[in-house]
Amino acid sequence: MELKPYLSKKRAIVDQALRGIFPVIPKGPAADVVKAMAYSLFAGGKRLRPILCIAGAEAVGGKGTSVLPVACALELIHTYSLIHDDLPVMDNDDLRRGKPTNHKVFGEAVALLAGDGLLTEAFRLMGGSMMAESVEAPSLLRVIRLVAEAAGYEGMIGGQVVDIQSEGKQVEPGIVEFIHTRKTGALISASVASGAILGGGRDEEVEAITLYGRRIGLAFQVADDILDIEGDSKTLGKRVGVDAGKRKITYPSVVGLASSKEIQKDLAEQAVGALKGFDEKAEPLRKLAVYIIERKR
Amino acid sequence: MELKPYLSKKRAIVDQALRGIFPVIPKGPAADVVKAMAYSLFAGGKRLRPILCIAGAEAVGGKGTSVLPVACALELIHTYSLIHDDLPVMDNDDLRRGKPTNHKVFGEAVALLAGDGLLTEAFRLMGGSMMAESVEAPSLLRVIRLVAEAAGYEGMIGGQVVDIQSEGKQVEPGIVEFIHTRKTGALISASVASGAILGGGRDEEVEAITLYGRRIGLAFQVADDILDIEGDSKTLGKRVGVDAGKRKITYPSVVGLASSKEIQKDLAEQAVGALKGFDEKAEPLRKLAVYIIERKR
Repeated sequence: MELKPYLSKKRAIVDQALRGIFPVIPKGPAADVVKAMAYSLFAGGKRLRPILCIAGAEAVGGKGTSVLPVACALELIHTYSLIHDDLPVMDNDDLRRGKPTNHKVFGEAVALLAGDGLLTEAFRLMGGSMMAESVEAPSLLRVIRLVAEAAGYEGMIGGQVVDIQSEGKQVEPGIVEFIHTRKTGALISASVASGAILGGGRDEEVEAITLYGRRIGLAFQVADDILDIEGDSKTLGKRVGVDAGKRKITYPSVVGLASSKEIQKDLAEQAVGALKGFDEKAEPLRKLAVYIIERKR
Repeated sequence: MELKPYLSKKRAIVDQALRGIFPVIPKGPAADVVKAMAYSLFAGGKRLRPILCIAGAEAVGGKGTSVLPVACALELIHTYSLIHDDLPVMDNDDLRRGKPTNHKVFGEAVALLAGDGLLTEAFRLMGGSMMAESVEAPSLLRVIRLVAEAAGYEGMIGGQVVDIQSEGKQVEPGIVEFIHTRKTGALISASVASGAILGGGRDEEVEAITLYGRRIGLAFQVADDILDIEGDSKTLGKRVGVDAGKRKITYPSVVGLASSKEIQKDLAEQAVGALKGFDEKAEPLRKLAVYIIERKR
């Protein structure tokens, strides 16, 4: 199978589903916050997390369409985290995916609330009745817990806080892995695991896919660190060299660029290795592991 | 029945359940954000939303203990909204419940993430397995949707954004009701309705209790407006006269103080009226409607 047309096709399906969530022209007194939510949601994301969710479901023989609400919810959570992360009190970024960041367009108060709104809407979507009809309610509750854990203080938020607090500091070894497995890895891992659960995967399948998700999740953030050094600002749609400027704790800053590339490659191989018991339905996941470390944006 | 001992008893149950959610001494690199979450959660809240959830369950013959995780989740959502609302980009308040606000103690970045963490943790709690054992999974999913809707851009967040954007402006009539029914009313209404759903209430019971919730939700915010004028700063644990200083859109500023008191009283009466088909198990809810407009804090 070819990954590129697979990604294009799935991205189109996810985009269409996301379009269905929000009114095309938001009306009423609170229209601004809806516009702000939609602005960042449709700013040209890769839809990696939704695609991983769909691919996770398909790998265990499930239907990709049946996980769409959860797939969309994962993109909403990812988008909220970017909006809050870009705020002046956090990373203070003014460019994201080649466009002005949310608070640059809508102001900080609305951007804050737009992030809150996306996070909240994600859980409404997951609890959504459409979803509940196509999958078992207990599986859906399990996924809600899994995603909330991955996005919460033991996952993404925990990673964010340590990331912010470690800037410019000498930290213990292990802290960079702590940050990366949580800040980005946790939600990526939960995305693919959610798909496997909702797709009806057996326990050992869900476990293997969870392990796959952990490895690519960490690999993704290591690749991000490397792109901040070697990437092209125009292709990335954001500034490069930001990590060094802020003295962020990254893999290259801790173990060097060459070792970071080795680690990234090992992680992708371990991810593919975790799927050895799976048939050709897991091929998109195998290809995605390679894509994640070879991507240019 | 006497409301005061009822409130004390339920508050103690809720506090104990909340204590069980967080590690007593947070450890690890991300301990700061957990401390910040706990700081605001245990800053002396009235636990009104959890108590309404429990009372809603009891009014339809359900067990209060079986709704505890959802009751706690509602308090987490309320607390997150206060932390974000107090941030400098929002209301910029430095005092809440007689204590420095979250960002004054932990800094803006950690406060932002603590709010995000509480909101996320709320959904983890609601999806929690303990809960799923004592109630039907589809009811729990219905409650998750209901609470997310009440907290989201069509509810609390929608109210917040219009509240912020209307400061100091001449607005159309109806905007103050738009703000108040959403900013505070939506989550209060969802609290009591969630209890009724999880307590096994029939459709018409859930409907009546939802109507009750809408009325007391709006009454609560009108009472808040009045307390900002007539209340005692020390008893309230926050500054008074803040609304006027910020030229907030409030009931007293739009219809005057005397009319606001009339409206508040009418709302409480309508709330009690909505419960006319209920027996003595709904007595706490009836008393709560009066408490809400007569409270001093």
